[in-house]
Amino acid sequence: MQYFIMDAMQRIAFDELRARVEHVLLALGLEPARAALSARLTAETDRDGVKTHGVARLPRFARWVREGWINPAAKPERVAAFGAIERWTGHRGPGNLAAHAAMQRAMEIAGEHGLGCVALADTSHWMRAGTFGWQAAEAGFAAMCWTNTLPNVPPWGAKTPALGNNPLVVAIPNDAAPIVLDMAMSQFSYGSLSSYAARGVELPVPGGFDAAGNLTRDAKAIEQSQRALPIGFWKGSGLSMVLDVLAAMLTGGLATNQIPRDPAKEVGQSQVFLAIAPQSLTSMEELNAIAQRAIDAVHAAEPIEAGKPARYPGEAVLATRAESMRLGVAVEDAAWEEFVKLELSLSHP
Amino acid sequence: MQYFIMDAMQRIAFDELRARVEHVLLALGLEPARAALSARLTAETDRDGVKTHGVARLPRFARWVREGWINPAAKPERVAAFGAIERWTGHRGPGNLAAHAAMQRAMEIAGEHGLGCVALADTSHWMRAGTFGWQAAEAGFAAMCWTNTLPNVPPWGAKTPALGNNPLVVAIPNDAAPIVLDMAMSQFSYGSLSSYAARGVELPVPGGFDAAGNLTRDAKAIEQSQRALPIGFWKGSGLSMVLDVLAAMLTGGLATNQIPRDPAKEVGQSQVFLAIAPQSLTSMEELNAIAQRAIDAVHAAEPIEAGKPARYPGEAVLATRAESMRLGVAVEDAAWEEFVKLELSLSHP
Repeated sequence: MQYFIMDAMQRIAFDELRARVEHVLLALGLEPARAALSARLTAETDRDGVKTHGVARLPRFARWVREGWINPAAKPERVAAFGAIERWTGHRGPGNLAAHAAMQRAMEIAGEHGLGCVALADTSHWMRAGTFGWQAAEAGFAAMCWTNTLPNVPPWGAKTPALGNNPLVVAIPNDAAPIVLDMAMSQFSYGSLSSYAARGVELPVPGGFDAAGNLTRDAKAIEQSQRALPIGFWKGSGLSMVLDVLAAMLTGGLATNQIPRDPAKEVGQSQVFLAIAPQSLTSMEELNAIAQRAIDAVHAAEPIEAGKPARYPGEAVLATRAESMRLGVAVEDAAWEEFVKLELSLSHP
Repeated sequence: MQYFIMDAMQRIAFDELRARVEHVLLALGLEPARAALSARLTAETDRDGVKTHGVARLPRFARWVREGWINPAAKPERVAAFGAIERWTGHRGPGNLAAHAAMQRAMEIAGEHGLGCVALADTSHWMRAGTFGWQAAEAGFAAMCWTNTLPNVPPWGAKTPALGNNPLVVAIPNDAAPIVLDMAMSQFSYGSLSSYAARGVELPVPGGFDAAGNLTRDAKAIEQSQRALPIGFWKGSGLSMVLDVLAAMLTGGLATNQIPRDPAKEVGQSQVFLAIAPQSLTSMEELNAIAQRAIDAVHAAEPIEAGKPARYPGEAVLATRAESMRLGVAVEDAAWEEFVKLELSLSHP
């Protein structure tokens, strides 16, 4: 898919990107240490090639801060605990900072108990889901985490949205190359659909239903019907629902059916962070060997296209990350322009 | 899909079915209490409408016991522990009994720590995955559990199997109606494909690739290519892999790449049982209300077919269960014939 590569883009040195994002976040009212951390997570998202959830989302974040949907000063806080499980509230502060703190605490608990869970209510968009998987895996922990969202996917058998696309992350430690799965419950995000639609490119696999109710690869038709497909049809529909209900039960916070349907007001999500310490039972050397054998088995499967072996989750991220550090972080021109506008608006308010 | 209902079948009273299975298991060498439990789990599988994994699998189980692949006397045993996580081995005993003991222990730990995990190595086929989700949800716990399997699904981008279909269960307590998701990582099992092929019915959605590498709804073509589709294409491929690696790391047992590729010798699986006690943080009344609101939201979505609302995971099971208790448990004639043959062979060995 040469399209992604040929989109007009800038390459920005990682440190410059991080520093400029930090500057913006300071101007938006984040405390210095929090601005620095959030800026790093944001720049790392672009560095890793997840262009939809890094710098490109800052203008929206800024708008939400200005409109009072997100409180830049609000810090996550523990409100209840029982053994290895804790309940936190995000107080509608910046979602990536609350999620980072929650995963950090889940790992601390796992270090003590083998397992640890932090259930975070009343937070805001955590930006890139995978961020918190990489955070755990790079610290030597396995982890699962997920968030609920506003209703944006019809349940299997229905036409109108009642489920979230509830991204799920599963992360596995491996010194050479962590294995990190980051997947939403819809086959394609609406962001991805609009990118295909704008480029006039057919989806690689069916992504939803058209107005007539037929499965289609036409992104525009799915944007119009608002009938995105859950992964695995009835299966992803079920998985989305159980993740949402479990998040609402553990956090005591909002379920998808209680989150405003307006994407411009999507706050108050519930999230679950589960860390597991496999090193409490097995040495890191042995864990690395288990991961490497699994990676080798996937690579050894006969590829459909000669010379293009199947990949493991996270493999493409690591390749993009290395390229970004060598050549600079790729940011699409349109996103960069918006970011520079935001910088200007904050320096001359 | 009238086909399933119109297949020639018997209706057997639940208690008779359970008692006759128990008799068979006693004859195969299981201790009385273990034969009784395994018989109940098996009869409940048919009662709940999961015909592929109940009585229909007993002839295979008997063959494996006779051939020494499964040791009917072997009991699961704890080999290591750290806080809320324990490592057990199944010693290749009956898989459903080992899994039931593992989930029971995970719930005990969760009762103490809020969360509990038992990682079970070297077990055998656990029969119906959902069994252990219902076990947890009916006891008031949320749970996740999964198993790895032999390599039977090609990773996305490859033609030859390197991943298992690794069934995953997520269970949610709800007094009126637990929500229990039981899903394999392939869109259709090979058992289901062969049933469609035998009936000459097209799959409702694409289920794999034909020999030419095109996505197809032709079950026979997929049986021939052995290229079953992971749910959500690249997404299920990734999810299958991380579940397998995490199971191998936590159990210290076999990964999919180490399990014999011959379905007649599929033993030694690794399984993870994670129990969560939401009641440690929230009353059961509140949990019931959260579940009911989510069920109501799914039911309220506008159905594709008028009068057929979308369903939540487990809803069909509960309907079938009620019917089975009223009319008797439906068992297909062919499966029943094989079961009666097995009974006879054991009473006149």
